[in-house]
Amino acid sequence: MRIAIDAMGGDHAPHAHVESALSAAAEWPDTHLILVGDPEVLQPLLGGAPHNITIEPAYEVIESDDEPVKAVRRKTNSSMVVAGRLVKEGKADAMISAGNTGALMAIGLLVVGRLKGIDRPGLAPMFPTLDNAGILALDMGANMDAKPEHLVQYALMGSLYRNKVHGIREPRVGLLNVGTEAAKGNELTKAAFELLEQAPINFVGNVESRDVLERPCDVLVCDGFSGNIMLKAIEGAASVIFKLLRAELTASFTSKLAAGVLKPNFRRVRDKMDYNEYNGAPLLGVNGLVIKGHGSSDAKAMKTAIRQTRTAIGNGLIAALADEFSGK
Amino acid sequence: MRIAIDAMGGDHAPHAHVESALSAAAEWPDTHLILVGDPEVLQPLLGGAPHNITIEPAYEVIESDDEPVKAVRRKTNSSMVVAGRLVKEGKADAMISAGNTGALMAIGLLVVGRLKGIDRPGLAPMFPTLDNAGILALDMGANMDAKPEHLVQYALMGSLYRNKVHGIREPRVGLLNVGTEAAKGNELTKAAFELLEQAPINFVGNVESRDVLERPCDVLVCDGFSGNIMLKAIEGAASVIFKLLRAELTASFTSKLAAGVLKPNFRRVRDKMDYNEYNGAPLLGVNGLVIKGHGSSDAKAMKTAIRQTRTAIGNGLIAALADEFSGK
Repeated sequence: MRIAIDAMGGDHAPHAHVESALSAAAEWPDTHLILVGDPEVLQPLLGGAPHNITIEPAYEVIESDDEPVKAVRRKTNSSMVVAGRLVKEGKADAMISAGNTGALMAIGLLVVGRLKGIDRPGLAPMFPTLDNAGILALDMGANMDAKPEHLVQYALMGSLYRNKVHGIREPRVGLLNVGTEAAKGNELTKAAFELLEQAPINFVGNVESRDVLERPCDVLVCDGFSGNIMLKAIEGAASVIFKLLRAELTASFTSKLAAGVLKPNFRRVRDKMDYNEYNGAPLLGVNGLVIKGHGSSDAKAMKTAIRQTRTAIGNGLIAALADEFSGK
Repeated sequence: MRIAIDAMGGDHAPHAHVESALSAAAEWPDTHLILVGDPEVLQPLLGGAPHNITIEPAYEVIESDDEPVKAVRRKTNSSMVVAGRLVKEGKADAMISAGNTGALMAIGLLVVGRLKGIDRPGLAPMFPTLDNAGILALDMGANMDAKPEHLVQYALMGSLYRNKVHGIREPRVGLLNVGTEAAKGNELTKAAFELLEQAPINFVGNVESRDVLERPCDVLVCDGFSGNIMLKAIEGAASVIFKLLRAELTASFTSKLAAGVLKPNFRRVRDKMDYNEYNGAPLLGVNGLVIKGHGSSDAKAMKTAIRQTRTAIGNGLIAALADEFSGK
């Protein structure tokens, strides 16, 4: 299998990307890693690279503050666009980028192209849960306004992903809502609820944002706006609480001593809330595997993304999605 | 001033309500507290009540699982409806209830009535912030679907509330959104952004849910659906983190010992995230003061709600709101 990596996108590019590629190439000899970027930058970092890493030249970079669609249209020789083209032309089975999220979504639509039968691709990161199993949540920001039918497409794609990539037989699908009763919600969720009940999925009903971390479902569907609000609210609350704890626990000599004893305990709690544990969010609904890594991905997180991508390729995710939607 | 208290609504009714009324009556002799409920239940709890507490008989109770509008229409002799009628008829300056939220909103609309010039009342609780000053956020669930103009009305009402009740001169108004740039968001927030820029308020732009606890604004406006998603996501994340910490810190003898030393520190962090600190959310946009207390309000929380209600009455909030919107 061949995986293209946008070697220039993300906070720790290109070092983390080269490092993870070297590690992945050694662990999985069947995998060909294509580092897309400036050879003059990448070659010295690679050194005497193994046979299953190659460089695909690309001399521009899409920056994190570039306007997505404009950047994709103008920077046709950027590492991200070139990686997308490799997928489109069948020269790579998947691409991974930790760069500008909006630009990656634009590449999904404009370069790789939509999957037949899908109106709107959705970005589907894994949410951490207390039992470490995680929830696949979509859409988390690819589309701000959604119609009820889009949520049904998300439910179908998310179910297939959890089945093919994570081996869950009948993934439980929940609808993000303000209450658990069927009649709750806004116009969108009320209409989506009825459609989801008819869909060929294991629909378990409404899910409240306060319960998400307890894993009430395996796939959570929502519009990109409220999904993004939830995601950032949880991240923000966690970050604030840890900041408060740090301030309190270093306030006095005694508290510092006691906190020192508890350091491993605190670390375990922090790790549970860590989104990097599940790095690699698929853009579901495009005609190829397009994977978004966290902007802050280090080499370990990038390797997690590569591992997930390998599983998705190995289990024929895109062919299964194409099958599912081709008749629709 | 006269404050009607729904003495039968909430998890700790009627005991907490009677206790808080007795305490408030003693502290504020200028305030007349009207306990609405079954005299046979309330009288024994009151004992020899001071002259500024009276009982207004009401023999039905709206339960937390009653269907709101139906309950308000049918249980016309319930404590919540009778309290609303006292406000409507000018026999009370305000009402407070810790009962069924949906029913209280229905009473706002059907019994008390909308304020002239307001399309949709909004429920405006205070969000805790790190500096303890809090943010007034609306709407948090009174209306699931909002139009851009509703968000502008929320901004005007919220500003006036922060000014009249909390003495903030030019309250900073933020718009809940998925990014801070002006062009971010869904159709609703994009349109609302433009209107808010023109409105006679101190608009500070978009606010992300991850930053809310740092108090980027004094008033936060949003539609009821995403507001409720954010509120419950923050509550849920905080509750999960404290649960994880508790499990970790009681896991071994050593960790228990160290955690014992840090108990006051943990409590301070927990208190910062406590929504009960700010009990008493006004239903803004109805023609009278209707205050929602937390369902789990104890006597202390109920007294906080009474204190806030007194300030709102004393500063002429409803007259100021009526003035603001009468020409619109």
